[in-house]
Amino acid sequence: MAASAPSSSAGDPDPNSTNLRPPSTTYDAWCGVAHGCTRKLGMKICGFLQKNNSLEEKSRIVSALKEQSSKNELENSERDARFRRTEVDFSNLFARDLLPAKNGEEPTMQFLLEVVEILTNYVRKTFDRSTKVLDFHHPHQLLEGMEGFNLELSDQPESLEQILVDCRDTLKYGVRTGHPRFFNQLSTGLDIIGLAGEWLTSTANTNMFTYEIAPVFVLMEQLTLKKMREMIGWPNGEGDGIFSPGGAISNMYSVMVARYKYFPEIKTKGMSAGPRLVLFTSEHSHYSITKAGAALGFGKENVILLRTDESIIQTHERPHKSEKVGIHTWVSQGNPHDLEAKIIDAKQKGYHPLFVNATGGTTVYGAFDPINEIADICEKYNLWLHVDGAWGGGLLMSRKHRHKLNGVERANSVTWNPHKMMGVPLQCSAILVREKGILAGCNSMCAGYLFQPDKQYDVTYDTGDKAIQCGRHVDIFKFWLMWKAKGTIGFEQHIDKCLELSEYLYNKIKNREGYEMVFQGEPQHTNVCFWYIPPGMRGMPEGDERRERLHKVAPKIKAMMMECGSTMVGYQPQGDKVNFFRMVISNHAATRSDIDFLIDEIERLGVDL
Amino acid sequence: MAASAPSSSAGDPDPNSTNLRPPSTTYDAWCGVAHGCTRKLGMKICGFLQKNNSLEEKSRIVSALKEQSSKNELENSERDARFRRTEVDFSNLFARDLLPAKNGEEPTMQFLLEVVEILTNYVRKTFDRSTKVLDFHHPHQLLEGMEGFNLELSDQPESLEQILVDCRDTLKYGVRTGHPRFFNQLSTGLDIIGLAGEWLTSTANTNMFTYEIAPVFVLMEQLTLKKMREMIGWPNGEGDGIFSPGGAISNMYSVMVARYKYFPEIKTKGMSAGPRLVLFTSEHSHYSITKAGAALGFGKENVILLRTDESIIQTHERPHKSEKVGIHTWVSQGNPHDLEAKIIDAKQKGYHPLFVNATGGTTVYGAFDPINEIADICEKYNLWLHVDGAWGGGLLMSRKHRHKLNGVERANSVTWNPHKMMGVPLQCSAILVREKGILAGCNSMCAGYLFQPDKQYDVTYDTGDKAIQCGRHVDIFKFWLMWKAKGTIGFEQHIDKCLELSEYLYNKIKNREGYEMVFQGEPQHTNVCFWYIPPGMRGMPEGDERRERLHKVAPKIKAMMMECGSTMVGYQPQGDKVNFFRMVISNHAATRSDIDFLIDEIERLGVDL
Repeated sequence: MAASAPSSSAGDPDPNSTNLRPPSTTYDAWCGVAHGCTRKLGMKICGFLQKNNSLEEKSRIVSALKEQSSKNELENSERDARFRRTEVDFSNLFARDLLPAKNGEEPTMQFLLEVVEILTNYVRKTFDRSTKVLDFHHPHQLLEGMEGFNLELSDQPESLEQILVDCRDTLKYGVRTGHPRFFNQLSTGLDIIGLAGEWLTSTANTNMFTYEIAPVFVLMEQLTLKKMREMIGWPNGEGDGIFSPGGAISNMYSVMVARYKYFPEIKTKGMSAGPRLVLFTSEHSHYSITKAGAALGFGKENVILLRTDESIIQTHERPHKSEKVGIHTWVSQGNPHDLEAKIIDAKQKGYHPLFVNATGGTTVYGAFDPINEIADICEKYNLWLHVDGAWGGGLLMSRKHRHKLNGVERANSVTWNPHKMMGVPLQCSAILVREKGILAGCNSMCAGYLFQPDKQYDVTYDTGDKAIQCGRHVDIFKFWLMWKAKGTIGFEQHIDKCLELSEYLYNKIKNREGYEMVFQGEPQHTNVCFWYIPPGMRGMPEGDERRERLHKVAPKIKAMMMECGSTMVGYQPQGDKVNFFRMVISNHAATRSDIDFLIDEIERLGVDL
Repeated sequence: MAASAPSSSAGDPDPNSTNLRPPSTTYDAWCGVAHGCTRKLGMKICGFLQKNNSLEEKSRIVSALKEQSSKNELENSERDARFRRTEVDFSNLFARDLLPAKNGEEPTMQFLLEVVEILTNYVRKTFDRSTKVLDFHHPHQLLEGMEGFNLELSDQPESLEQILVDCRDTLKYGVRTGHPRFFNQLSTGLDIIGLAGEWLTSTANTNMFTYEIAPVFVLMEQLTLKKMREMIGWPNGEGDGIFSPGGAISNMYSVMVARYKYFPEIKTKGMSAGPRLVLFTSEHSHYSITKAGAALGFGKENVILLRTDESIIQTHERPHKSEKVGIHTWVSQGNPHDLEAKIIDAKQKGYHPLFVNATGGTTVYGAFDPINEIADICEKYNLWLHVDGAWGGGLLMSRKHRHKLNGVERANSVTWNPHKMMGVPLQCSAILVREKGILAGCNSMCAGYLFQPDKQYDVTYDTGDKAIQCGRHVDIFKFWLMWKAKGTIGFEQHIDKCLELSEYLYNKIKNREGYEMVFQGEPQHTNVCFWYIPPGMRGMPEGDERRERLHKVAPKIKAMMMECGSTMVGYQPQGDKVNFFRMVISNHAATRSDIDFLIDEIERLGVDL
């Protein structure tokens, strides 16, 4: 191990500070002089000095610095505590040498700084378009072990040097989801404030279940949920809510709460205590509604899928410019008439309609169900209305686009994932409920060892018992910090910009040779769905042969993209439609040039297919 | 904003690198000279130069450096990219000035380094016993706003200076869960390798659902789960598993999978397609089993609680030294005889026994159910056996203590939370299942937009469809990295040390004046449960008055501990037992002196109660 300079500030001597070097070396003598200079600079110079052996050299530099220092004011004492890097040989250090080990402070700080250097270099390169999005390898290649990178675990410890190599390699063989040309998921981008928030969250390493051990985070969650409820439009932002591990779990909460509202005895007696309950959601909605139905004991076949009507678009192009604001008859909507017909049908069969999910931004098309029309039907039949705004909820932050969710204030519950459209790091998903206290009613088990009623503070702030989890990760801080740093207007600008970019893409390709749009009309969200028709296929007549060939185009182009690492975009089939590209934009680093790049890349890779 | 020096390495020119300073200043001229020196040193000196105005001074230093550089070899080009701190005025910078903003690289790096300084100072102080564990404030105090710290969110952005203050204050008013004297939860301690792993995880910011976007993490999860299954003792480590957001969800998985195994049609048709299913678990087990029963549609009353028999301890003191290894007749066990009686009773009522949960380390007592005895009964009646080793599973890493889980290899599923006894940062919980493929069978919905069968790689590595989540946080990396860094033997040492410490505590207080143990005999895990009897109560006769007074002692001492911030330990009532302290040790920073401190503190604070 190399040198150590005192790390505590002069004004605040730290009894626990350690000095790993043997005392009284020549180096220390010189270093002491350097420290006599302005402290921070002294420490930096110190790092230089230890690597140089010419005393004459050192003498000259140090005396120059010393003269300099006498002219400088004493620096702010808080600044004094700043870290500095020294050269440390990590090949002889192990995890056991780090804190809480005796004399562990210096290697701990040096190790963490080394990690931070790896991470900041990664961040820097992620935003650099000359960096590849990924360096693709097949599973068997990574499993067989790349040079110096072996995934296997063993009984014996590895040196910290190897651990640092492992960190570098983990990033090297991963995917840069923050790269300006990564368009593969609904969650993209690397927000620097959010990143800082995550680093702090993991350093705090606490748990959301009680105010006792997460006082600040619990209050941040409470305030942020209230703000979100205000944006939904519930009076005074009243209601309930919690951050959950993702939109699927948030949607599961909505079904649980609906069941508890109408049939509270099911909590105690089970599903057999109620009638045969049915749930409704559109065939284009997220699969998590059906998954929740299966998990919670309703059964998949009691989740009734509503037909969507893509033809309606023909008569309502650009509905947000019509006067019918709030009725977004659009592709992929849950057709309200079909909903009412299916409710009546279910009742006639003796089933009990319980719950309707309206999607605010479907996963593939980005379509918004007509919430107001659906809400009318829910009110008429006394059903729970949930809005799955996992993907589209972010549009509530935009004055220009929030009308697409008109009627959301009539929902009983809303899923909203800031980790999607709002660029918050994974994971960050909220379930918001209009009725206060119902989450606790639904989920509480009153475990005495966690939720003691006789604490010295107001225990209504202990939120653990309203969750289906016990321990719960702190997902709020990064989001709260981003909101502080950007303001509501910052999120609005981000969202408006992403929607403008998707409009740019749509306009660029809608009449371009070799492209066919999957649905007609301008997208409501940033989803642009299209087929690319390679030149060799352009004259082919419609029919099975063309369909089969077209079905293979997107997977082939995607595979080539991944292998050359230039960009990533999703594709999938849907219903009777063969594989098509689904372009989505939530990445704040993306620009028009990246959209142009994507199109060029598709054409370059697809030319011979 | 202050200066910027080129940050890319000389050998690898970066076309996107930015220089925030206007060109051709005197500063740049000098800086260029400095850069001509060894590059890394040049950058450091550059930071110094920009703060000094004397050209003569600069001239002298720079020429010294230049001479020096000619003697030095070219430095490793990777090292060249190292960061350095400069003085930046963050009060005029905002989130919008950071990457991906034009010229955003320099402020981004400086901002992140500033955050890292806050975090490393926090880490340093966390391990310093002169630091308080917490600085307690009531919810209303924090909500009203502390000086300079306002939790409210607004429309307009805050400066990065304010964001940094917010980061500092968030930590200041939080709880140091890594402090050597924080004993409040099953998850304590701050592992430096785990922390580095979390920082990397959030920088990678990806999602576990497909190999496509998390290739390395998906493979790490697969290998680590296999290793855990090997430690459980399943042949060749075969089976299934997934990391989930906490032990409660892992336990919920076990119930879902059991139901799917015996009644797969319930996935499609709902609970009404099966008989009335009942689950069994001990009254001392974690409440998440009952919670799962309520959520999944079984109903709370179909989760049958088994009596525990604390008297058995009298005849089997130190059972692990007897020959009956594997039959841990101990306090808080799920009494096997009661289990069989209740199974028979349920069948007679026409119910269908489905599932038994045996706890490997109960939350309050740390007791281990006799797994082999329970497994015998499960086999006899063809029931699913789950072992909830959320807290005790870590003991499988210890050759000395793993016998407490003897029989675990007979379980059908196991919950094991590395974030508890193994000190992995939150969250890290695994559900492990003996039968391969059953998680996917139970949960798959085959969403075409995520899990395309026509990808270029082996899509069996796409794990998303076996989860109840859609997106899933990367919980594996920190754990994998810790395992690499410590080796299996490092975890073993950690666990053995924590158990030794609890033995030390037990021996210290078992006969000490003023202490009564809640259960007799040596604890099996690190849980030491005791009442402290203040001097003024020591002569009191047994009875309601004494009970009522004793019930208030632990909450009062705990409140005082929190208000002076010296230490934290949990308390709770259980059954007919009034509030008692539950001491647990999972913190690798704790030593005997911290145990002594805790006892001194209880006596100091409780003397007048």
